[in-house]
Formats: sequence, structure tokens, C-alpha cells
Amino acid sequence: MRIVTLITDFGLRDGFVGVMKGVILGRAPQCRVVDLSHEIEPGDIRSAAFVLYNAHRWFPVGTIHVAVVDPGVGGPRSALAIRTDRAWFIGPDNGVLSWAVRDQAVRSARQITNPRMFLRPVSQTFHGRDVFAPVAAHLARGGRADQIGPEVQSWKQMPWPVPDRGAGGWRGEILYLDRFGNALTNIPTGDFQPEDGAPWAFVVPGRKRARFPVGRFYAGVGSGEPIAVPGSSGFWELAVNGGSAAQRFGLKPGDPVEVVRMGRAR
Amino acid sequence: MRIVTLITDFGLRDGFVGVMKGVILGRAPQCRVVDLSHEIEPGDIRSAAFVLYNAHRWFPVGTIHVAVVDPGVGGPRSALAIRTDRAWFIGPDNGVLSWAVRDQAVRSARQITNPRMFLRPVSQTFHGRDVFAPVAAHLARGGRADQIGPEVQSWKQMPWPVPDRGAGGWRGEILYLDRFGNALTNIPTGDFQPEDGAPWAFVVPGRKRARFPVGRFYAGVGSGEPIAVPGSSGFWELAVNGGSAAQRFGLKPGDPVEVVRMGRAR
Amino acid sequence: MRIVTLITDFGLRDGFVGVMKGVILGRAPQCRVVDLSHEIEPGDIRSAAFVLYNAHRWFPVGTIHVAVVDPGVGGPRSALAIRTDRAWFIGPDNGVLSWAVRDQAVRSARQITNPRMFLRPVSQTFHGRDVFAPVAAHLARGGRADQIGPEVQSWKQMPWPVPDRGAGGWRGEILYLDRFGNALTNIPTGDFQPEDGAPWAFVVPGRKRARFPVGRFYAGVGSGEPIAVPGSSGFWELAVNGGSAAQRFGLKPGDPVEVVRMGRAR
Repeated sequence: MRIVTLITDFGLRDGFVGVMKGVILGRAPQCRVVDLSHEIEPGDIRSAAFVLYNAHRWFPVGTIHVAVVDPGVGGPRSALAIRTDRAWFIGPDNGVLSWAVRDQAVRSARQITNPRMFLRPVSQTFHGRDVFAPVAAHLARGGRADQIGPEVQSWKQMPWPVPDRGAGGWRGEILYLDRFGNALTNIPTGDFQPEDGAPWAFVVPGRKRARFPVGRFYAGVGSGEPIAVPGSSGFWELAVNGGSAAQRFGLKPGDPVEVVRMGRAR
Repeated sequence: MRIVTLITDFGLRDGFVGVMKGVILGRAPQCRVVDLSHEIEPGDIRSAAFVLYNAHRWFPVGTIHVAVVDPGVGGPRSALAIRTDRAWFIGPDNGVLSWAVRDQAVRSARQITNPRMFLRPVSQTFHGRDVFAPVAAHLARGGRADQIGPEVQSWKQMPWPVPDRGAGGWRGEILYLDRFGNALTNIPTGDFQPEDGAPWAFVVPGRKRARFPVGRFYAGVGSGEPIAVPGSSGFWELAVNGGSAAQRFGLKPGDPVEVVRMGRAR
Repeated sequence: MRIVTLITDFGLRDGFVGVMKGVILGRAPQCRVVDLSHEIEPGDIRSAAFVLYNAHRWFPVGTIHVAVVDPGVGGPRSALAIRTDRAWFIGPDNGVLSWAVRDQAVRSARQITNPRMFLRPVSQTFHGRDVFAPVAAHLARGGRADQIGPEVQSWKQMPWPVPDRGAGGWRGEILYLDRFGNALTNIPTGDFQPEDGAPWAFVVPGRKRARFPVGRFYAGVGSGEPIAVPGSSGFWELAVNGGSAAQRFGLKPGDPVEVVRMGRAR
């Protein structure tokens, strides 16, 4: 049994996701299709790349991940199928796959070009159905990779925002806001590991009240209080216990964050 | 393995859809349940009919489609199970199935009347659970169709809005707005096939700025520009590259559209 | 084949639910995962408890229900696995399971403590992935219950609001608002069974116009008219035919309701 995951910006109202599943299950009846997200904002390649990056590692080896956030559908952008030592990643070559594969061993990457794979005629607006679903089904039922198309050596990279370790602490940025309003930063929990009880805080330059003392879990402060916790994705995240840090402090992806010793002047 | 699809206006918050799946899987453990949509606006039979019409054809032959947008639940409206040469369609007799079956060969249509099929007592508010789910499960595990109820020769039709081909071009209407704000018209891509480079545009009478030159794909115009493209459902659709045509021009289902030669006075 | 259901407040945008499914299917590939709801408002334990209470009974015996509405994650609250004669219930010990099991025969209840069950390292923010998903998978593939942790005799109870039967009628409250704006009360349809045609109505004290005559189904009154119907969950519910009772009358959970004979002075 193979698992195929789907991440798109299609929403769940119009039937597009169901149609992709119809195509996949029609061609690979034994596979299991799991939704990662279909509520990515239309065209938000960056958020899709981040969700895929976070989620894929929790699936069994051999899973086939399909990402269709594809504002350039029908145009000249090409389509990719990347195989790593853990999984397959399928989607448009617009950067949406690039974060998921950035810390994995890539075995091969292919451009999806073989029209015999596709539903025909291929629409110019819905390659999720006509191109990516059939390629996923082909792989899910054990089809040969070299039938997909020729190998490529490179693909569009979305730059990963690497945080800086300065003298006074870390400087990074907000990568993603989750539905709870937690702000995930790009500062890895494995890199910044404050000794217990050390008085560190995350701050957002320019927003004086956005000060998140380092803790261990959301309820480690009183209700409504800000706190920075080691998040489940492996990054420090800024939270408000029982509330939304994003809403409370007007945070958004790309905002800078700094880690400072509390009490010190800045 | 049989696929059962579900389309409802239940939303995903209250557990109604999960309950239908519990009933179906309890009685037909081997079948696969696929969501088409549960975000149909409450009581919007027309949108459900359109989504089902678009989606069903991408599923394997033998799929069982269940549509429960059912504002008359518990009242005198009857319930239907229609078998075509491709699939089963199950739902209330309020028109929600009528578009999906309109261009298919109907083998038989039955009124759902056999109380031995139902969960008992049958509620007056949730036939999705008590009537339609068990009938779908009955068919999914290979149950006999004649146990459902008597054959009927007709059912409620929702009129399909047929576009007009006039001297100057086509006149039609907007059928559906998708989550991207694309406006799907009722003008089939197979009927209106402009020669390449021909200067046609879709316009919305009364809204002077809503002018969509004919193109091939969304990104065929600059960001924020309107364009009409052959949509993946087989209808021309009005779009704004990287934006929402519906929002930008205040479009809604039922609005008239016309196809005109560009540059000509109207 | 075992069914695992999921109810959370994670939403469907961030991939958290997909990740739980990845963990479950990686460890118990044969099980079927069904979503009950992921649109519970963040931290709304009461609504999750109610949805689970309503939904679980429609699943086959042996189903494993996982509820993760868990604002205290990472803190001192403990985690539970409760086995009844119908099903398993897994989640934090914060009351979210207590309504579902309140009218069932509990065979055993265990505290989830065995770290060998968990993904390691266990995050302090996502026990859905690190604790509850692996325990569900353990049970789904037939693992022994005593490996989960020690038996406990009690767990956090959320008080169930019992309605009063007074001289003039019933007094209760609104338990839950569904997506249609129907207001589910705590008055059981099995307890209040008005004779046909008897002039009863549900009223909301302090809101003079919120008067819902007792009927049988939504469309039993004219469009836009209020009506009280025996709901599919086994409770009387307040509705507006073709509209939202919640919006129309500003209803919310906890609001008192009374059943009165119509025409009588109050």
C-alpha cells in the first residue's frame, strides 16, 4: 500500500480535490490518499512549501507527495517529480517542492513530459487533475520512473531564510502563522537551546510589546500571556497562551525576530 | 472496491460528514469514501448540482455518488437512486442530481422507499445518515437495486441554462464561482473555439470594465489582468491572473455574459 | 480493519491533521482514518465533547476515537485511553472525552504514560502527533491495552447540563450551534414527546421574538419561520426554515430555553 498526500490551494468547496482523488483511485485503487492541506491561500507557494517541508517527514518511506500550488499552470513553467531517499515529490517547478527536499538525499529528479501519462486533452488550468494525479497514480502502482520524463539536474529553488547567530543572540524571521495564531520562526530548536531558567526572550524589532519570554509549553504562562516555545516542527514559535500571537501583535510572515537576554538593554 | 463520493452542505465542523462515513463503513467496510464538497452554501442545490456534474466524470465506472443538499428533509419530497451507464447517483428528488445525469444514459431510476434499508427510527432532519448513507452502503457491498424501491420514470429537473449562439457571438450566463473567484460560464469550450489570435472577448453587459480577452491560460496576461480561458470543466471561464474575477468585477451566478469581437462597437 | 476517528481544533490548513494520519498509517497501515471535525474553535473543549458524544455512536463497535482539543498540552494534565463496551476514546484528561463515555459501560480507563509508545522526542506542543496518534495506532493494530499505562478510576468530568422538568414544561439550555445556525438544546426528544398537534413552543427567556412552535421537520413552517424540531442527535433543536436561528435571534451556547404551552401567558 502506497500513500499519496495532496497539498493544494484548491479549497474544499469546488470539488477539485475530490476529482484528483477520483483520478488517482481510478488508476491506483489500492493507494491511500491523505490530505495535507487544501486551504493554502491561492498562489501562496511559500506557505505550501513550508507545510510540505514540515509534514512530509512524518509519513512512511515511499510516500508520494503531490503539491499543486500552481499560479503558472498552462504556461511555460515545467513540472517535476523528485525522488529522495524517503519519498517522491511531485508538483510544478515553481519552488513549492524545494524546501521539502532541501535537507534530503535526492536520488533523481525528472521533468514530467511524457504525454502518455496525462489525461487527454490536458487542460490549461487544472494540471492537478490532468498531469500530477496520473503521475502520482503511476508511481503509486509501481510504474517506472523513467517513463515520466528526462532527468534534470536542477530546479527552481525558493531561498531558505537562514537565521544569523550574532554576538547578542539570534536574528531570524517569522516563517509561517498557524491557525492558532502561533508564529513559527526560522530559528531551529536544535540550534538555540537555552539553559533551563535562563532569561531569554524573543522580540520583534519595532514592536515594543511583542516580547516572548522563553518557556517550554503554551500553558507555561498565564492565560493571554506571550511565550516562546520550542515548536513541534523543530523551530521556535511565538505564542500567546489561549490566544493568537499573530492577531495580538499583528505579526506576519517575513517579520524579523531576535532572541535577546531579558533585562538587558537593547 | 467501490468508491462512494459525498457532496453535502453540512460543513466540516459539526461531525455530520463523519457520521455518514461511520454508517457507510460500518455496513460496507471495504468501500472507499471520497469527499467532493461539504462547503456548499446551506440549501444551494444549484451549486451542488454543478459541482457534482463536473466532478463525477473523473471517477471510475461504478462509483456511487451521494448528494445531500436537502432543505426539504423530512417533508414530502421523495428520495432517488439513479443508475446510469457510468455510476449511481443518490439524493433527494429536488434537482440536485439532475444536472449530473442529464447527458448520461440512465439505466434505471428508483424511488428510495424501503424502510428496511434505513437506520431506525429515521430522523426528520438527517436523511444523509438515516437514508442515503445506508442505501449507498447497500449498493457498495453489491446489494440488489430492486430492494431500494420502485422504479420511477421522471424526477425533478433543474433547467440547464442553454447559451444562445447569435449573429454577433454567444450569449450565456455565469454558472458558478470557484474559490479562486473564477467565473465559470455555460458556454462550452467545445462549441466556441476561436481561431488562434482572433480578437474575441467575454463581456458582462452593464459592467463596462468587465472585459475578458480570450486567452489560453491564466498567466497569459499580466498579473491582475482579466482573461477568459477554456476551463477544465469544459466551459469558458472568466479569470483575473493572480486575482479574483468575481471580487474585482462583482460577478455572481446568473449574470449574463456575451462573447464579442474585440474592437467592434457593441 | 479498524476505524480511527479524529476530532481536533487544528483546522485543515497547516498540515497537522495530515501529519497525525501519516503517523497512524505508518504504524497501522490497514486502519481507516475518518475525520469527525477539525474545525472546533481553538480550545473549545465543550463543543468537541458534544460533537464526539453525538458522532461516536454511529461508528462500528471497536472504533478508536481520538480527540485532541488540548490547550494544556505540554503541561501537567494527563492523557487518557478509555475503553467502553463500544469503542476506545483517547485524548487529554481535560473533559473532552467525558460526555462521550457518560452513558456507556466503561470497561477500563488508563493513563497514557508509557514513553515507549510515543514518538521521541515528545514535543511539548503537539501530542496529537507524538502521543495520541501512536497510541491509536497501537490499539488499531491490536496492541495490548496494558502497555499504554496504568488503570485509573476517575477522570476529569465536564458537568452535563441536565434539563429541569417543571410544572409548566421543561427548562433547559442551548448546548451547541451547528453550521446551519440550528440551536441544539439539552432537552431529549425521548423525554419531551408532545402529542400531535399540541400547541407547545420553545422560547428563549428575555428574547421575546425567539418563539419556536413545535413541529416535525424544518420545512414544516414557511420559509424564514422559526420551528422547534426533534433533532437527529436526540435533542430538540431550534431552527429557522431556510435560515439561521442562531443569527436571527442571537442565540449562543448556554442560553436558557423553556418549553411552554402556546397561547398561555408566561
